[in-house]
Formats: sequence, C-alpha cells, structure tokens
Amino acid sequence: MESIEDWAGKIFAGDPRAIGKAISAIENGDPSSDALLKALFPRTGGALIAGITGSPGTGKSTLTDKLALHYREQGKTLGIIAVDPTSPFTGGAILGDRIRMPALSTDEGVYIRSMATRGRLGGLASATLDAVSVLEAAGKDIILVETVGVGQDEVEIAELADVTLLLLVPGSGDSIQSFKAGVMEIADVFVVNKADYEGADRLVREVTALIELAPPENPWTPPIVSTVATTGEGVDRLAQAIGDFSDFSREKELAQARLRRRWRKRLVELLERRLVQSVMEGRVSSEELSGYVEDIVARKQDPYSVVEEMMRRAGLN
Amino acid sequence: MESIEDWAGKIFAGDPRAIGKAISAIENGDPSSDALLKALFPRTGGALIAGITGSPGTGKSTLTDKLALHYREQGKTLGIIAVDPTSPFTGGAILGDRIRMPALSTDEGVYIRSMATRGRLGGLASATLDAVSVLEAAGKDIILVETVGVGQDEVEIAELADVTLLLLVPGSGDSIQSFKAGVMEIADVFVVNKADYEGADRLVREVTALIELAPPENPWTPPIVSTVATTGEGVDRLAQAIGDFSDFSREKELAQARLRRRWRKRLVELLERRLVQSVMEGRVSSEELSGYVEDIVARKQDPYSVVEEMMRRAGLN
Repeated sequence: MESIEDWAGKIFAGDPRAIGKAISAIENGDPSSDALLKALFPRTGGALIAGITGSPGTGKSTLTDKLALHYREQGKTLGIIAVDPTSPFTGGAILGDRIRMPALSTDEGVYIRSMATRGRLGGLASATLDAVSVLEAAGKDIILVETVGVGQDEVEIAELADVTLLLLVPGSGDSIQSFKAGVMEIADVFVVNKADYEGADRLVREVTALIELAPPENPWTPPIVSTVATTGEGVDRLAQAIGDFSDFSREKELAQARLRRRWRKRLVELLERRLVQSVMEGRVSSEELSGYVEDIVARKQDPYSVVEEMMRRAGLN
Repeated sequence: MESIEDWAGKIFAGDPRAIGKAISAIENGDPSSDALLKALFPRTGGALIAGITGSPGTGKSTLTDKLALHYREQGKTLGIIAVDPTSPFTGGAILGDRIRMPALSTDEGVYIRSMATRGRLGGLASATLDAVSVLEAAGKDIILVETVGVGQDEVEIAELADVTLLLLVPGSGDSIQSFKAGVMEIADVFVVNKADYEGADRLVREVTALIELAPPENPWTPPIVSTVATTGEGVDRLAQAIGDFSDFSREKELAQARLRRRWRKRLVELLERRLVQSVMEGRVSSEELSGYVEDIVARKQDPYSVVEEMMRRAGLN
C-alpha cells in the first residue's frame, strides 16, 4: 500500500490517477481521505473557484466547457467538478453520463470529474470542498464547480465558490418571480444563456429590475452577461466579469470574509463528525446503541434523555 | 411565559395555535423545541405516517387533499405537512403559497402546515420528523407528508414515513429510465396520477416491468394505483393500498425495522448536535473558534489538526 506522503506527492505532481483515487476516497467517506487532505492542505487555497449553477436545461455543462476552453487558450490549467445529487427521482445521470467536449477530455491541462453523494456524512457540499482542495493541491489555476441547481445542496455548494454564476434561460418555467430574495445573495454574476432565444431581452430586463431591489448596502452589483453557450458567444465577456468580481472581491476583502465563513462551517462539520465517531467508537458500543433504539421504539425512554445519558458517558455535559 | 407542561398540554388537547407554535420553534431550531419534544414523546408513535412524493407537477397536493377528504369521511383526524426545501432556484412557493381545498382548511379535524428548512442544523428531514411527532402527540390519526420530490432531502423524508407513495404522470419528462434502482427502495405504492392522460397505460406497463426487476427477496411487491386526483378517481383504491401495506408491514415486522432505522438515525443526529453545542458553548469560545478559522485561512494550521486540538480540549480523543 502506498503511503499518504507518496499519494500526496503524486497529487502535487498533477497525476490524474492519484487525483481520481483521492476524490473517490472523499466520495466514499474513506478514512484515508482525512489524512490525505491534511497532507495536501498547505498547498491549497491558490485556485479561483467558480460555481456554475442554474436549473436543469439552462446549458450549464456546455457553458462550463466553453469557459474551460477560454481559460485553456490563456494557458491556465483547470479542474472541473460536475456535482450530481444522485437523486432517484431526477436520475443520477444528468451530469454524469454527459460526454464532455473531446477538446477538453483529451487535454492534460484539464481534470474533469463527476461527483455524487452516496450518503456521505457531512453531505455533498463538504465532499465537493474536499475535492476542490485536491485539485488546488494538484496545481489547477481555476476550478469550475457545476451543479444541477435544484436544492439546498446547490446553495451550499455555491457558498464554497469564490464566484458564483447563476444561469437563466429565456422562456423557461424559471419565471423571475420564483427567484425570491435568496438568489440575490448567491449570484455574483447572472448569465442569460440561450440569448438568441425569444424573450432574452425581457429576461435581462427582469433580472435588472431584480438586482435593483437588492439592499443598497450590497457592495457588489452583479452584472448580467448574455451568452450563447453552443456557439461560445459572450464567453469572453463572462470570463471578464468573473475576473472583475474576483478582483473586486479581493480588494474589498469580500474574498477573505467568504473564506472565513467557508472554513468556520467546515471546521464545525469536521468537529461534528469526529465527536460522533469518538463517542460511537469508544464509549457507546453498537449493541448499546441498538439497546437505546429498542427503548425508544418501545417508548420506554425518550431520545432526548438517551442523548443526555450518552453525553454523560462521554464525560461531556 | 408559558411552561413546557402547559404548552404540551395544549398540544395533547389538539390546540392548533400551540401546534403551530411548536412547529415554528422546530423550524427555527429554537432550544425550547427539545424540551417540548421530550414532554410530547410518550404520546407519539400512534399515527400512520404517509409520505407523498414525486416530481413537481405530478399532482401531489391535489392528491393529498383528496386522500385527506377520504380519511375525513371515515372519521379520521389528519395532519398534513407540505415540505418545501425553500430553494432560491425553484422558489420556496411551490407548496407554501398553494391554497388548500376550502373543505380542508376550515375543518377542525385537519391541521395543515408548510415547512421550510431555514438552514436548521440536522436538516429538513429531522425537522419534519419532529413536526410529525407534534402532530402525533396532538392525536392525529393519519399524517400526510408531502414533498416536492427533487433531491436527497426528499429521500430522507420518505425514510421517516410508514408508507411512501411515489407519484408518476404519463408523458412527463419523468421517463421511467431515469428512475434507477434507488426509487424501488422508497416506493411502497406507485401512483400513476393523471391516468386520463395519453400514455397512462404505457406508464403502468413500464412501472410493472420496473417492479419485476426488484430483487426477489423483497417481501413486498409495490402495487400500482391509477388515479385522477382532480376528480378523486382511484383515491379509494389508493387508501386501500396504503392500508394493505400498513397491515403487511406490521405483520411482517417491516414497520418495526423501519422505526428502528428511523430512530437510530435520529439519535445519532441529536447526539451530533448536542456534542457540538457542548464543545462550542463550554470549551471553545466563539473568539477562539474565530482564531482557529484565521489560522486556517492563513494556512498556519490545517483544519484536521485544529479539530484534533478541539477534541483534546473537550477531553475526547
């Protein structure tokens, strides 16, 4: 078996097999991933992380590919993570089975990976943040995180990005009325994709009106960039808008504030996981836990009192 | 301020204001909810909990209402929880703003409530389980939990039900191919709603074929019930199918196995929350946590070592 140091060394060198193995370990919640991430940590924090989100059918994958090509032409290396909540309802295949542009999938400067949750403790957002760390340690300049954008998971993933793009398309069910306040907080750049479709102008006007409703203390006014992902139209302007926000964010220390929020949350999650592991492994055996569960099911004890008892046994109260 | 005993007493008496206040406290993660749930616990466990799930537009709310009317005619009391993941993308209004049938909203035997997450620790599924407990303590015979059915949250909510209905409609994007294996595990009853639409027969055949693919060791073969929720057609047969599964499940001790799984998960979640609270409140101050976060952001310490230090300080290792 390979040592953590060797594994980390290969990742620092950008070895795609070592990167892939690391992301699989993260996905599966394999304990080796913690030790690895610890070893990788000093070399993380260097990439620009862009979240690309929006409802299914807005053209996220196509736009992600075009954006990646644009950055490649500038000599930048990329990681692309397509996050897939693996719901049995929507089918796990929305992103996973999609075939990427050949220009990207054969390019050694680009690492592409789909990620699913598989019930990992801490959820999809943590797994994605850890995978981003692996790609940062592998020296990628830019990391594009693409989500299907339908639930709370995606909001959390947006929170881990340095800049978040929200894609909208004209004439979709996506009426602007449905967007409510929450979206203003996560979109740093609005993208009106399929801008050659009917209704694009109206959508731009609606989003403009929505942006004007934002509280005046918001330091950044999100730009609206019109694109046609299939032809690549507008992708250069989109990259410019991403760069602008990134500069602004660093200047105004927004970037630092986001980093702090991100790591505070991650730290609490890690603590949560380790605390439960510690109690479950060392202090309360699996049989004892089953006994507690029996008592609860039989209504002999309530779960709140059981937890208090477990806390006492762990010496915490 | 009202005592927990008085509050619980009002809930036992079915007071809708006291129930509403309890569910709000749960939604907001208010600490009073733990003490209340502890007081309510001995009177929980008595209701039949049915989860109603499926993609948006399959007619869940209409079917839920018709099912509720059916049970009312049999003299049963009901709680209806419409779970809304409050995504900024899909809009929080899908279920919340919907107007219920007047026959239900003016009926004292029915308590109807929409629930959202608001970033509560432990997630939407725990909040829903707690709200179900409140309605059980309030003496409701049947609790219908309706979800929008698009992500992991909904799978977890399905896990807390005694019986889960999965709604499908003909001619939707919902091709049966997209349903993959996971759905077989959560659907106890398949509902082909809008059965008067073209393609309903084909959908029934597709679902039948899917059910036949299930592992032979599965003790229960989910029935397929065709309904037209708008007219109420098939609702009696659906109630019959729910009753059949419920009987089967109790007989074969499936119900007990589900209860055990549900409470084991809930217990670990509660423990998680209490452990983190204990460490954050008693052992590591908010300023110290901020200091750790600064170190991490500055790459002076890695989060994994920080967590180990916090664990040592909590006396757990």
